[in-house]
Amino acid sequence: MAINSYAAQSQGAKLTPHTFDPGRLGASEVEVAVTHCGICHSDVHLIDNDWGISAFPLVPGHEVVGTVTALGKSAQDLKIGQRVGIGWQAGSCMKCEWCKAGEENLCSSAQPTCVGHAGGYADKVRADARFAFPIPKALSSAEAAPLMCAGATVFTPLLDHKARRGTKLGVVSVGGLGHLALQFGRALGCDVTAFSTSQSKAEEARGFGAKRFIDLNNADAMATAANSLDLILTTAAADLPWDALIGTLRPRGTLCVLGIPEHSLSMMGFPLVAGNKKVVGSNTGSRKSIEKMLAFAAKHGVVPTIEKHPMSRVNEALQTVRDKSVRFRAVLEA
Amino acid sequence: MAINSYAAQSQGAKLTPHTFDPGRLGASEVEVAVTHCGICHSDVHLIDNDWGISAFPLVPGHEVVGTVTALGKSAQDLKIGQRVGIGWQAGSCMKCEWCKAGEENLCSSAQPTCVGHAGGYADKVRADARFAFPIPKALSSAEAAPLMCAGATVFTPLLDHKARRGTKLGVVSVGGLGHLALQFGRALGCDVTAFSTSQSKAEEARGFGAKRFIDLNNADAMATAANSLDLILTTAAADLPWDALIGTLRPRGTLCVLGIPEHSLSMMGFPLVAGNKKVVGSNTGSRKSIEKMLAFAAKHGVVPTIEKHPMSRVNEALQTVRDKSVRFRAVLEA
Repeated sequence: MAINSYAAQSQGAKLTPHTFDPGRLGASEVEVAVTHCGICHSDVHLIDNDWGISAFPLVPGHEVVGTVTALGKSAQDLKIGQRVGIGWQAGSCMKCEWCKAGEENLCSSAQPTCVGHAGGYADKVRADARFAFPIPKALSSAEAAPLMCAGATVFTPLLDHKARRGTKLGVVSVGGLGHLALQFGRALGCDVTAFSTSQSKAEEARGFGAKRFIDLNNADAMATAANSLDLILTTAAADLPWDALIGTLRPRGTLCVLGIPEHSLSMMGFPLVAGNKKVVGSNTGSRKSIEKMLAFAAKHGVVPTIEKHPMSRVNEALQTVRDKSVRFRAVLEA
Repeated sequence: MAINSYAAQSQGAKLTPHTFDPGRLGASEVEVAVTHCGICHSDVHLIDNDWGISAFPLVPGHEVVGTVTALGKSAQDLKIGQRVGIGWQAGSCMKCEWCKAGEENLCSSAQPTCVGHAGGYADKVRADARFAFPIPKALSSAEAAPLMCAGATVFTPLLDHKARRGTKLGVVSVGGLGHLALQFGRALGCDVTAFSTSQSKAEEARGFGAKRFIDLNNADAMATAANSLDLILTTAAADLPWDALIGTLRPRGTLCVLGIPEHSLSMMGFPLVAGNKKVVGSNTGSRKSIEKMLAFAAKHGVVPTIEKHPMSRVNEALQTVRDKSVRFRAVLEA
């Protein structure tokens, strides 16, 4: 049974229809009929091979929701017809110390869903069934799709760094990831500050849960937040004013980098040392973290604001992500 | 009773004799007759006002060991004649959240021993008595002096980041701090790797506890350590090959910055994010940490290798620190 997808045949190319034979389903695999697939900014980076890890033809898509159509013989925890989601990761070795510790996202053999593997801009997608997650009833499929990567990526560091009631949380950039981070932060009871260079997003940021909004480029506004935050999530794949952000951290505060900036991060040593401040990266989420995120989102009504596009108009949809006009997450519909 | 000290009268100046009247002893203060004072590279930074925080005339010295000569009326936990050490910090507010949590080193009102306060290049020095620590019998005064700052600075992050038996520890630079970090690491049971640009220090590094020695500037040697370390302490106040060092960290590994580099740290975002890697600063140590460090050093025989100089030859001694010829810590003797 062929899979019909949209693929970039080479670096930076427009996507074109691409049909391929996926071969026999592996024993531990699931095949999912895609109903929805979110467009993550990482898909653009992969199409452009910004990280030097892409393989072409490249079928993007790692925010998949759909219905189980086939199961390998050792993948019987799911059921045919069940609604599941698949995120950044479609498999891992399940044997290394990280997999054993429940941190499959750090496995050195982790299989990304759309790097060297056909992703979700397609009628069907496959994954190790252990990386296909049942979607709670309270979440619509279109809204659940962006949770699979964007949601997991922002929720995981909130768990990891123990964000809770009263945590002074900063969220940098009010976009696909950021608008979810604001909502998760509010639902956790955090005191949330949004940072953005777009003054136009101030009202929306407040709607998503920010108590205050600070223009990243306004030094006076940044100074009002000096030494005030416990945790900052940087959700933009952008070069940021790192020293100014670190200046807003309290002693022992954590700047958690989620979006990968184009250039190296640069930061002065003195404030890091004087305040025992921390800069840390966070890579998507483990299986356990994704399950917790889905349950939490369903319980607290954390859902993305989305713009839907038919899968057939994938290139137009991608352009809204490239030109940053999408508010706040684009989702392809079958 | 005047205090006779050596002070820099202005930025970068040679030290000259400087006698001053310290006024009445505060109720919570101790006065200590200095028998030994280590020379820390921070003293040079303060003389040169590299951090923009110096006040002149500046009496350097924050690795003090000596004998209690006077006690304020509410400072009765110490005894006249008792041997004590004083480190980077001579006082703090003792009221803020950090002081209450036993992290006085993060107090925003922390009083450094030799910034806006006369330090230990002197016949006497004062401090809040709560920051004067009894020296265990097993430690000689000359050897205990460098422990008060260098020792605390390297031991604290080992505690903080849970270095223990089997921890893969990297120590960057085999100098005043580094040679103590190697010894503490070995005594904790860590698997220790020393990094240096001076091949000449390889044998000494092994003597202090390193199982292997890697030339920081040798890309092939660095590659052999890829993804292998849990924790790295950077003990040099130097610009380092940050990306190469981060490359030697395992997932969730921590690069802990102790020496403040001249220029900003620069690091690529991708490896931080992909491996959930962390860069964190660490500022000296709390009172509790200094007490633990002294007890641990006494028990495990962790002592600095020192070069002694009479206090009267302080400028020659400082020069050995400036030109990095000292092996491994200079100590002034009264």
